[in-house]
Amino acid sequence: MHKSGSSQALGPGGLDISQSFFKPIHGASPPPTTTRTTKISVIGVGNVGMAIAQTILTQDLADEIALVDVNPDKLRGEMLDLQHAAAFLPRTTITSSTDYSNTVGSDLVIVTAGARQIPGESRLNLLQRNLALFSKIIPPLSAGSPEAILMIVSNPVDVLTYVAWKLSGLPANRVIGSGTNLDSSRFRFLIADHLDVNAQDVQAYIMGEHGDSSVALWSSISVGGVPILSFLERNQIAYEKQTLEEIHKEVIQGAYEVIGLKGYTSWAIGYSVANLARTILRDQHKVHPVTVLAKGLYGIHGGDVFLSLPTQLGRNGVLGVTNLHLSDEESQQLQKSAMTILEVQSQLGI
Amino acid sequence: MHKSGSSQALGPGGLDISQSFFKPIHGASPPPTTTRTTKISVIGVGNVGMAIAQTILTQDLADEIALVDVNPDKLRGEMLDLQHAAAFLPRTTITSSTDYSNTVGSDLVIVTAGARQIPGESRLNLLQRNLALFSKIIPPLSAGSPEAILMIVSNPVDVLTYVAWKLSGLPANRVIGSGTNLDSSRFRFLIADHLDVNAQDVQAYIMGEHGDSSVALWSSISVGGVPILSFLERNQIAYEKQTLEEIHKEVIQGAYEVIGLKGYTSWAIGYSVANLARTILRDQHKVHPVTVLAKGLYGIHGGDVFLSLPTQLGRNGVLGVTNLHLSDEESQQLQKSAMTILEVQSQLGI
Amino acid sequence: MHKSGSSQALGPGGLDISQSFFKPIHGASPPPTTTRTTKISVIGVGNVGMAIAQTILTQDLADEIALVDVNPDKLRGEMLDLQHAAAFLPRTTITSSTDYSNTVGSDLVIVTAGARQIPGESRLNLLQRNLALFSKIIPPLSAGSPEAILMIVSNPVDVLTYVAWKLSGLPANRVIGSGTNLDSSRFRFLIADHLDVNAQDVQAYIMGEHGDSSVALWSSISVGGVPILSFLERNQIAYEKQTLEEIHKEVIQGAYEVIGLKGYTSWAIGYSVANLARTILRDQHKVHPVTVLAKGLYGIHGGDVFLSLPTQLGRNGVLGVTNLHLSDEESQQLQKSAMTILEVQSQLGI
Amino acid sequence: MHKSGSSQALGPGGLDISQSFFKPIHGASPPPTTTRTTKISVIGVGNVGMAIAQTILTQDLADEIALVDVNPDKLRGEMLDLQHAAAFLPRTTITSSTDYSNTVGSDLVIVTAGARQIPGESRLNLLQRNLALFSKIIPPLSAGSPEAILMIVSNPVDVLTYVAWKLSGLPANRVIGSGTNLDSSRFRFLIADHLDVNAQDVQAYIMGEHGDSSVALWSSISVGGVPILSFLERNQIAYEKQTLEEIHKEVIQGAYEVIGLKGYTSWAIGYSVANLARTILRDQHKVHPVTVLAKGLYGIHGGDVFLSLPTQLGRNGVLGVTNLHLSDEESQQLQKSAMTILEVQSQLGI
Repeated sequence: MHKSGSSQALGPGGLDISQSFFKPIHGASPPPTTTRTTKISVIGVGNVGMAIAQTILTQDLADEIALVDVNPDKLRGEMLDLQHAAAFLPRTTITSSTDYSNTVGSDLVIVTAGARQIPGESRLNLLQRNLALFSKIIPPLSAGSPEAILMIVSNPVDVLTYVAWKLSGLPANRVIGSGTNLDSSRFRFLIADHLDVNAQDVQAYIMGEHGDSSVALWSSISVGGVPILSFLERNQIAYEKQTLEEIHKEVIQGAYEVIGLKGYTSWAIGYSVANLARTILRDQHKVHPVTVLAKGLYGIHGGDVFLSLPTQLGRNGVLGVTNLHLSDEESQQLQKSAMTILEVQSQLGI
Repeated sequence: MHKSGSSQALGPGGLDISQSFFKPIHGASPPPTTTRTTKISVIGVGNVGMAIAQTILTQDLADEIALVDVNPDKLRGEMLDLQHAAAFLPRTTITSSTDYSNTVGSDLVIVTAGARQIPGESRLNLLQRNLALFSKIIPPLSAGSPEAILMIVSNPVDVLTYVAWKLSGLPANRVIGSGTNLDSSRFRFLIADHLDVNAQDVQAYIMGEHGDSSVALWSSISVGGVPILSFLERNQIAYEKQTLEEIHKEVIQGAYEVIGLKGYTSWAIGYSVANLARTILRDQHKVHPVTVLAKGLYGIHGGDVFLSLPTQLGRNGVLGVTNLHLSDEESQQLQKSAMTILEVQSQLGI
Repeated sequence: MHKSGSSQALGPGGLDISQSFFKPIHGASPPPTTTRTTKISVIGVGNVGMAIAQTILTQDLADEIALVDVNPDKLRGEMLDLQHAAAFLPRTTITSSTDYSNTVGSDLVIVTAGARQIPGESRLNLLQRNLALFSKIIPPLSAGSPEAILMIVSNPVDVLTYVAWKLSGLPANRVIGSGTNLDSSRFRFLIADHLDVNAQDVQAYIMGEHGDSSVALWSSISVGGVPILSFLERNQIAYEKQTLEEIHKEVIQGAYEVIGLKGYTSWAIGYSVANLARTILRDQHKVHPVTVLAKGLYGIHGGDVFLSLPTQLGRNGVLGVTNLHLSDEESQQLQKSAMTILEVQSQLGI
Repeated sequence: MHKSGSSQALGPGGLDISQSFFKPIHGASPPPTTTRTTKISVIGVGNVGMAIAQTILTQDLADEIALVDVNPDKLRGEMLDLQHAAAFLPRTTITSSTDYSNTVGSDLVIVTAGARQIPGESRLNLLQRNLALFSKIIPPLSAGSPEAILMIVSNPVDVLTYVAWKLSGLPANRVIGSGTNLDSSRFRFLIADHLDVNAQDVQAYIMGEHGDSSVALWSSISVGGVPILSFLERNQIAYEKQTLEEIHKEVIQGAYEVIGLKGYTSWAIGYSVANLARTILRDQHKVHPVTVLAKGLYGIHGGDVFLSLPTQLGRNGVLGVTNLHLSDEESQQLQKSAMTILEVQSQLGI
């Protein structure tokens, strides 16, 4: 583990200047063995992992940030680049190591590592490789931080959150995927931009699979307390189903569009995961659409499937799932999403 | 100019739902023609420009962020990636355009654009190309925002801040380079890390050129109010000049090391510039080591040279330069720095 | 005007140490005559005014806070008590004066001054005295800050916002009362506390008069995106109208209860007004239930009446009023509120 | 203990709507028995205690704030007034009780309770009454939160911190008085105001007794890294010792002046203690002048005396005392302060 870039002594030889710089007081007790500070680990320091780590640092959500990656050079470069900003930020300990022991005692472990698709590779083959990767990553993480919340960001997030849950041995309330929290922010931004309102005044959820089969909950959108669908009806504003579907399509296309333009996504997923980290670590009891074990909820049956539902989160992870009313069509779409994911999972042999 | 990714209407045809969603009150006045909100423009959306823009967004320092770059795809991708986080942040208008008119009316314009060194290219040739680039960039920026503070981040920052000042026609107090604000944070981090103190309790400056000839002000370092050199003397702690120089060397190597490890620097310079933006826009009257017109100060003569001095900054840019006491050696190093920069400038023919 | 408690010089006689401490740079321009920093004035430094000023200071919403009161001792004591915290806060200029000229150039003027009820005094007589007070206060405030937003907090807030609008000569979008923004927070807290959710996930409005005849909008309450009334219906949870009315009663009693227990209210109104200040000065386009000119909206006719409606606020004050659907009963209550207020106003002779 | 003002059920009878509003997921674990959230208790809800509690709430430093006072009405009024702001703030649990059991499991306990001087009462008699009060308060506090940091704000803070240490049975590093942290902020403000700089750029300490015999460390004042005394010397700026002493006198008079003008102090002490709370709970390792066990430091001998020294604070309380260089005069003043306090303590019989 590398805590810093410094090794020189201000004084020479074995002389420890810091011991003479501060004097101990009488009757002082040693530091407690159990820490009461907050530690977040980020696994994978690619564009997504670093956008998450840096946003968490800027928003002052942790007392210690531990980075882990297989590439020691990139890892150390990212650690130093964050540490060099020390004078501009509250004191946060930033460590890095290729070894998972660096994460021991975390309150929150965020996994962004994942295999990349090889051109021509089947989706299933990619998943098998990610399963192999998670088999190496997850067990040491949950063993080292048995009290942590485990948050999966790697894609496909729904299946990989299931995989992480199985491999971790953790209770289901402490294994969560970042899911459609970001899709929902894109959805709220598009609606807010159209109406020239603040996106924080827009209530709107994308549920289900994080991806092409996600479900837009038109029936529960409200803006500043005004339910949109009934507003349109009351004001006899005709709208076409096709128009709504195009907004949903734009949400789904959002990630693809950004990847097509800049090569990857980073900032928005960074803010999304930092937003979830705050709710969890500060025990905020707020509702977010995230990937959770959905079995038995919203008519979803047939197995241990993880997908995004509006979930109340706090220091104990999942506190409960909101009992939203879905239209029949929304309900069927959600159950179809579940079936698709379950089918993929069944092929994984886990 | 592109304000958002949305173009669909929730209602069809020419019907404007937002007009029926909110009703105007009687006796309302139109919006004022002169805006009183805060606008920051960032020129260049590479790793440095985006780390700056994203940190400014997270720290909620502006009501509008305008991005400009020559690459329209990268530009739009970065804008969308920030916009998609709308639901997690206070409302900030984020725009992007390849056209400088997008920056009109800025309070602060941050320039990160710059030509990259071609293998085998001489330093002077690179500078000439950057001069040509700035000749295109700077005049429309200062014309569009004649009241703005202009902050140069592109390297070599000292000469390019001089170039920007000449090209902009702005008074010297409103043209500032990011200079050694970051070097000083690295310096404070290394000292703080060594003594296990908070870097914000460490007062320490790197002055002069942002680069190899920078000057470390050993004589004015203090930690928690304790001047280090006299502390060492009083406590008869021997220290070797070589040790101090190695810490300074580590500061200078900091940027090279990060570039060697991860390929570029981004986070720390992002925090550094956001830190300056806050001091300036919120009129904080704080002292930062930044690139300013140094002529006639600290015994620097011979021409209009820009280099980093401890400078009090506020809404009017440079408020004054701190009258620090330098040792003879520090003084000579600073003047030597100035001569080197002046020599380069003289070859530019501007 | 008193900017600080200091008058001694560190150097003796006419010597100005600050002039030698910082050196000017060459080619500097003088400070601009038009300031671009943010100034908030608070009129009245009683418990409410000071809770507002201190919350605005802590939340870093202004570059300058100007306090005005008729009691010079209390005023100077409050100014000094805030100034003494300078080392713990970002730099904010805090001034105080018994003279309204101290408020010149404000972006936001918050009025908390008001006559107190004399035992046995009729409500109308109290209003007449407040009208006399406002006749002295308001004209110099709007004359000194013709571009400001004027926010009335003094009670009865609805009638006094009307009075301030008439006396100020300002357009209606720039005269706002704090209204039921606080009542709505109390409402959201009671619902959130009952359901063990985050109050920020609760959408709920109290509209109309700030006081006994306020209207609770049961039909538009939602929690985490779930409309409460239809949730109760769908889940066949019987609820009694009386229960709902008791929650509303508890909201109305909230202020009386706090006054009965501690003698006055302060903290919650401080947070409420700071919350409005942020939305306005940072141009957030958020919806708040505040006192606005309601003529012609929600079927309110008969005159220039001010009462609380869900209003989109920004840098230009009122941007629009949300077009909520009210039940017939809610609609009638609102119109009855309006009639009551209009009747009081008609007796004022303004 | 009272968590909220609400007792009505949205649904009638024994029906619990919150159970049907959220659905549990499969395989969820119960909440952990050991909480990992942050709890701060404030003892005494007078002007000082409430300014502290409200500033801590605004700055979002705790997940739970527990208030204790002997006056149940005032206590409940203050709790409700803070709770009513729930919709404007992150979720924080606010509880109140006249019973100390409400503080169990605190991370930080802040004591502001104290007897008030009766006209004509001797200082010693007042102290004896405060000793009696602390004998009732302190033991249950340390018994209920054996891992907490105990911070004393009640005056005379130096002697009462000693009393609290003796009564608590806690190690000396976990019993701290707010001491001259506020005096030092007043000192920094006066210097900053005079030089028109940011008070955060001023390093300056008031040490020793919090009160009339406090010691101003002129020899270690620096502004933006410039030591003031040597600056004055180098620039041959004559200054008179009397001038410096007048600034110090103004600091000492600061509290008396505010009390004379507004009747009490509140805001500045609130910010000062919130500032200390952040450093401690977020383990910031920053240096603050606070009341600590000074025996054996700075030549202070003769007994267990508590007074203010520049102290590095973190999650384990006192991490060490800075080894500042004092002039002979400063040293003698400090030792004289210590003697005075020791003499008072010896009369207490504890």
